[in-house]
Amino acid sequence: MHIDRERLEQSIEDLGRIGATAKGGLTRVALTDEDKRGRDWLVARMKDAGLRVSVDQMGNIFGERPGEPGLPPVMMGSHADSVPTGGKYDGQLGVLCGLEVIRTLNDARTRTRHPLTLAIFTNEEGARFQPAMIASGVMAGKIALEDAYNARDRDGIRLVDELERIGYLGGEPCIPRPLRAYLELHIEQGPFLEEEGLSIGVVEGIVAIAWSRLTIHGVQDHAGPTPMRIRHDALVAAADVVGRVRGIARELGGDVVTTVGNLTVQPNIPNAIPGRVQLSIDMRDPKDATLDRARVLLDRAVREVSRREGVTYELEHYWRVPYTPFDREVVGTIERAAKATGAGYRRMLSGAGHDAQYMAAIGPTGMVFVPSHDGRSHCEEEFTPMDDIVHGANTLLGAALELAGRA
Amino acid sequence: MHIDRERLEQSIEDLGRIGATAKGGLTRVALTDEDKRGRDWLVARMKDAGLRVSVDQMGNIFGERPGEPGLPPVMMGSHADSVPTGGKYDGQLGVLCGLEVIRTLNDARTRTRHPLTLAIFTNEEGARFQPAMIASGVMAGKIALEDAYNARDRDGIRLVDELERIGYLGGEPCIPRPLRAYLELHIEQGPFLEEEGLSIGVVEGIVAIAWSRLTIHGVQDHAGPTPMRIRHDALVAAADVVGRVRGIARELGGDVVTTVGNLTVQPNIPNAIPGRVQLSIDMRDPKDATLDRARVLLDRAVREVSRREGVTYELEHYWRVPYTPFDREVVGTIERAAKATGAGYRRMLSGAGHDAQYMAAIGPTGMVFVPSHDGRSHCEEEFTPMDDIVHGANTLLGAALELAGRA
Repeated sequence: MHIDRERLEQSIEDLGRIGATAKGGLTRVALTDEDKRGRDWLVARMKDAGLRVSVDQMGNIFGERPGEPGLPPVMMGSHADSVPTGGKYDGQLGVLCGLEVIRTLNDARTRTRHPLTLAIFTNEEGARFQPAMIASGVMAGKIALEDAYNARDRDGIRLVDELERIGYLGGEPCIPRPLRAYLELHIEQGPFLEEEGLSIGVVEGIVAIAWSRLTIHGVQDHAGPTPMRIRHDALVAAADVVGRVRGIARELGGDVVTTVGNLTVQPNIPNAIPGRVQLSIDMRDPKDATLDRARVLLDRAVREVSRREGVTYELEHYWRVPYTPFDREVVGTIERAAKATGAGYRRMLSGAGHDAQYMAAIGPTGMVFVPSHDGRSHCEEEFTPMDDIVHGANTLLGAALELAGRA
Repeated sequence: MHIDRERLEQSIEDLGRIGATAKGGLTRVALTDEDKRGRDWLVARMKDAGLRVSVDQMGNIFGERPGEPGLPPVMMGSHADSVPTGGKYDGQLGVLCGLEVIRTLNDARTRTRHPLTLAIFTNEEGARFQPAMIASGVMAGKIALEDAYNARDRDGIRLVDELERIGYLGGEPCIPRPLRAYLELHIEQGPFLEEEGLSIGVVEGIVAIAWSRLTIHGVQDHAGPTPMRIRHDALVAAADVVGRVRGIARELGGDVVTTVGNLTVQPNIPNAIPGRVQLSIDMRDPKDATLDRARVLLDRAVREVSRREGVTYELEHYWRVPYTPFDREVVGTIERAAKATGAGYRRMLSGAGHDAQYMAAIGPTGMVFVPSHDGRSHCEEEFTPMDDIVHGANTLLGAALELAGRA
């Protein structure tokens, strides 16, 4: 049994048109009008495929294909939101490959013992509401529903109000549910598969991730008549922190990555000395202990810079996900399915967080990676060759079928 | 003859309520609804004082008090727009002291040979539309009317459309007009008067100012799975430039000041490596030659940083105002008027740009400074003691009366 390449390619094109950017990318940020349109399109396709669709309290969408009564489902899923000016593979590819698996089984009239569920998680990217993966986090009991509801975007709009506005504030409880397995296909977002000429990554786990938020308070003043000697420039301090955050990765070496992705200046005009700067720090490593060391270095760097510039600060270490190993049985099943496609594959870790990270706390979980051209993602140039996508989707099909069992 | 302290204080309070912030500051950004309300209030007060009010093509407001026929006016003025979360002295104080001078002359039934004109200039701050002082720049023929009309704010809205929207797109040509003199009272925005215990600054000229805009193009990518070795992070490069811009002031020493006040990151989310950063560079010095050297150092710093980080850039040196000396006769007149108040005063330069800078190209020009507490401005804590304001307003009154001549 093989997935239908043309149909899958067509659905990638169709969904990719909703929120498409002029340069071939995608802007379909969580709970915007574009996200609603993407969701509506997916729900219609799920119903076309005969799935029973439900929506939970966090706007997560589930489409169920029945199996034998009383058995927990094999869930396949990912997310349909994007970062601003992102690409049309990150997230939606996993959802569409899951849909294609179900369509393929329908065509073959193959019934499974365990039901199959297609899942679409809300606000995985964390581009609008933080933290990322907020909806699978609630489902896994790691984030309180109330906190998630009260998450605000930069305009102060609450997540729950946007869920309601776009019509995806569902009634089903967002709590752990019995699972045979959770499978997520996703683009690698790194360079390794392409560099090694492989089509499939069998993901053994997700690196540890730590997010911090730094707010620096300097003294806002006029850029002209204020002599250098009396300044307390929040941006000069923040800029030094940005350099030192990169220095932490250099000092620790190995696989650790450190990033300042978000930085906002107030009042942010050419002729005012910045009075306040807020910035994000993202640090990741396969080993939790490395992140502990990175945090100590970050604390010290911020303290030193602030003292020198005469500014005050708050440094919040507000989100931490430990190294998440995936289920050995599921990883082994995915590896067998990858091997069966005849394509090149390897075992690897994920450097990005995914809903699978939280789902691993609910049931046996594994992931399938497909290559990212030049290792690029979260950008309009994001690209995965169709040949690799087909191998990935067939791997997902094989693994789902083995875990669900033929009826 | 002396100005009326209570009346002046009341008008500072009244106008300061329009756009007031919770912390005692002011947000009345150019051509917003608040700016319109501030303008409407001022126009009403100008009419109350018997002035004939007109509005020109750039929304500059003029209120005329007649003198002998055919003689050019003594113009007093400043601006009524503020930076976001700015203070209630910058700009509006000069307008209100000019209004108070006219009210005082009215009360005393004093007629002058030369007419007196109260002027309110549009968008002096440059917080919303750039460059700063755009309307006096057009009046002086230094900026083309069409370019000013097409200036866009960060939401892409054109200046001319906002002028029309708030009802201040006037019909009078915005061109040089005959002037006996232009006088502008303003807060110092620096620490020197307060440090020396003086009430009045007799301003001899305005330092040279250079504005540049740097756009850095890196490679947007995912902050997780992208190894440090393949990154081209636009923010890491920009942060280094921020540090080097301060280094330029250190290297050149003396009175030079350098500031990065504006910095925006794209896509500006915690888990994406910044693909694009735009930032402003503001450099000022009494000597034009110092800014020439600063520019060479800036060019070199940006080139070096970009080469090291493997990013590309555009560096635009888009605005330059040379050192502007004020008129010797007018400065002398202001100094006599300051001395006559009995308050402490000194001659000094202005480190900030003012509409007076462009007006000096049209007619004999001078400025009166009053102290800024802690040297602070462009912030909610901006403060000038009322005693100093009274001395400044009386200086403006004395100078205007001497230049206009009693009828």
